[in-house]
Amino acid sequence: MAKKRPNTEQEQPEVKLSKQDQKTLDNLCRLADTVIEAAERVRDPFLDIPSRSLSNVKFNRTKKFIEMGKNTNRRHLFNLSQAKAYMQTLLIGSGCTQLIKQGKTTSIRGLYYLLKHTIEGTKEETFNEQSESDPIIEDLEVLSSSLREELHLYADKKGEMVGPLTLIDNGDEIDCSRMGSGGYGIPSIVEPDRVQFKKCTAKFILHVEKNTVWQRFNEDKFWKKQNCILTHGGGQPPRGVRRMLHRLHNELELPVYCLLDNDPWGYYIYSVIKQGSINLAFESARMAIPEARYLGIRSIDFERCELSRNVTIRLNDNDRKRAVQIKKYPWFEGKKKWQQEIDKMLENDFKLEVEALVNRGISFVTETYVPDRLEDQDFLD
Amino acid sequence: MAKKRPNTEQEQPEVKLSKQDQKTLDNLCRLADTVIEAAERVRDPFLDIPSRSLSNVKFNRTKKFIEMGKNTNRRHLFNLSQAKAYMQTLLIGSGCTQLIKQGKTTSIRGLYYLLKHTIEGTKEETFNEQSESDPIIEDLEVLSSSLREELHLYADKKGEMVGPLTLIDNGDEIDCSRMGSGGYGIPSIVEPDRVQFKKCTAKFILHVEKNTVWQRFNEDKFWKKQNCILTHGGGQPPRGVRRMLHRLHNELELPVYCLLDNDPWGYYIYSVIKQGSINLAFESARMAIPEARYLGIRSIDFERCELSRNVTIRLNDNDRKRAVQIKKYPWFEGKKKWQQEIDKMLENDFKLEVEALVNRGISFVTETYVPDRLEDQDFLD
Repeated sequence: MAKKRPNTEQEQPEVKLSKQDQKTLDNLCRLADTVIEAAERVRDPFLDIPSRSLSNVKFNRTKKFIEMGKNTNRRHLFNLSQAKAYMQTLLIGSGCTQLIKQGKTTSIRGLYYLLKHTIEGTKEETFNEQSESDPIIEDLEVLSSSLREELHLYADKKGEMVGPLTLIDNGDEIDCSRMGSGGYGIPSIVEPDRVQFKKCTAKFILHVEKNTVWQRFNEDKFWKKQNCILTHGGGQPPRGVRRMLHRLHNELELPVYCLLDNDPWGYYIYSVIKQGSINLAFESARMAIPEARYLGIRSIDFERCELSRNVTIRLNDNDRKRAVQIKKYPWFEGKKKWQQEIDKMLENDFKLEVEALVNRGISFVTETYVPDRLEDQDFLD
Repeated sequence: MAKKRPNTEQEQPEVKLSKQDQKTLDNLCRLADTVIEAAERVRDPFLDIPSRSLSNVKFNRTKKFIEMGKNTNRRHLFNLSQAKAYMQTLLIGSGCTQLIKQGKTTSIRGLYYLLKHTIEGTKEETFNEQSESDPIIEDLEVLSSSLREELHLYADKKGEMVGPLTLIDNGDEIDCSRMGSGGYGIPSIVEPDRVQFKKCTAKFILHVEKNTVWQRFNEDKFWKKQNCILTHGGGQPPRGVRRMLHRLHNELELPVYCLLDNDPWGYYIYSVIKQGSINLAFESARMAIPEARYLGIRSIDFERCELSRNVTIRLNDNDRKRAVQIKKYPWFEGKKKWQQEIDKMLENDFKLEVEALVNRGISFVTETYVPDRLEDQDFLD
């Protein structure tokens, strides 16, 4: 059944590029130019790839987020152990160039499939597994000073949003205050050339960990009563959600409050939202929100909220280990309140999920717990 | 910091009940009445719980979905081994009654926390783990002939939708054709008292497995070109997505086409959408879509679409075992085309993800593959 439809790529007209796209393309071209320059000068082509190892990541106490150091690793073409990675880097670069020129985006899995082929005249595949192409994508992000989203790549999409905000998403005007119980699914790519904020009367953002908690807040119209934007990230928020929070925070000057579980995982989610992640340190400047506040759940809430022992969950060995690690993060280390918070959890020897507050009533969390914290400005920094 | 805000439950005024809520409450009351009746007749109270074991589930060849048989298990109050489960059942029933009367919903985890307490004068907890309350919820669904959603319980929310459809969700009018790249997050509870369809010009529904594939179709405005509704369920679709598809299919008479991976997991997702799941057989009548069609990916696509061997993924032992099991499902057993389909996959000894079609071009799947299948009406039933 070989149909006569055109094979998509070849006959696709090139699209009008946004300013951002033009900039990203320029960055990618500069990278390609290094090969030509090296050839013209009869030198070995190489790339200096900023090192993404732990030793090259540090907490910038002025900017208050994790950033990369200046160490680089040189990747040569004419070196048996580096040639494949070198060629893979240029291949990913050319794949992204193709995406941008066609005005298309794809998933990182899609790019892997797109570029995977057997090199002519050999039995060698460009990539054997997606686990080979993913780190090269990160290399390219650093090399070309481009976010993955600017390279037209998207990740899994999760997270939703409601609140008094009207935005333009690819030309469609979306009123996030009229989303019913469903909510607006936060896109993977929320860069300014795709998503523009049109009108916002919200005073702050409440970011909750899980969609089940988000549903409680949405059903109780918390965002209407408190005049805020309500988001969730389905656990550890994906890049699209982090970037959306970052833009809302910086462009609309909205404070960000996080309602997360009282466990090491909740602390870690907060840490990533606030300081950035070690793995993606090169993106902190456009992702991290150093002014984010931790609203709860707190280790003191068992007593403060008079909860029943029935709703506590005992820490396991891994929890205890993680808590001790997190306690030593440089951005928690100097903070007395955070040290007390984590110590108290270890002393409790139990964790508390946000849902545990249901012990005090179905809407206790939306009608009492969060409003009280906001009124008292009672957060961890 | 004991604030003077009211504890939510007690002072909450009762809300106006929808017809559906009244019906569900009646069902729950009838259940409670059995206790009183038994007491008045000086008999042991008991509940006859329809058996949810595999032996009590069968494929109804006329209705073309999985349904429960008539076997029940009697659960006595005055029986040491059954007393706890009996009381748990009534406790869940009273919890749901409370939710309905207050006009609130909660997650199944929330309900677990809400009802978990130590029984007065003992050290016995009502539930030790959520794994104890979840099956009792399913018992109650069958016992009270109510969907979980009608009991005001929701599950994790995933899945999104775009297309020429306007619906009302809790009073908000939502135009699914103006959702940008984000999409409308399909709610957990989409029963008619909460979600009403207002206007729809779509001709069919394309349901894809993953959100990354959905993003490709949305970006290419497939739903606009083909005039259809585009949904995904984030893998195995949650109940809310299945119920949404069921309602769209039955109330708006839209055919449902499924684009899933060519692997046993994709076959299984199709099987659940079409015939229902063994575990939730009692809900098939309101969830299963026997007329759903399997559009692809097909085992013949490696040759038919001239794909490169690079994009195939070898079957593992578990895949082979699952394929043989699925081949014997009664609803696949009598179908020659399905037998060929599964045999061919086993013969190929590889699977193909939808993303593999990117091998033919980024938009091959939206511009060629699916349009060709639709034009030729080339599906598996």
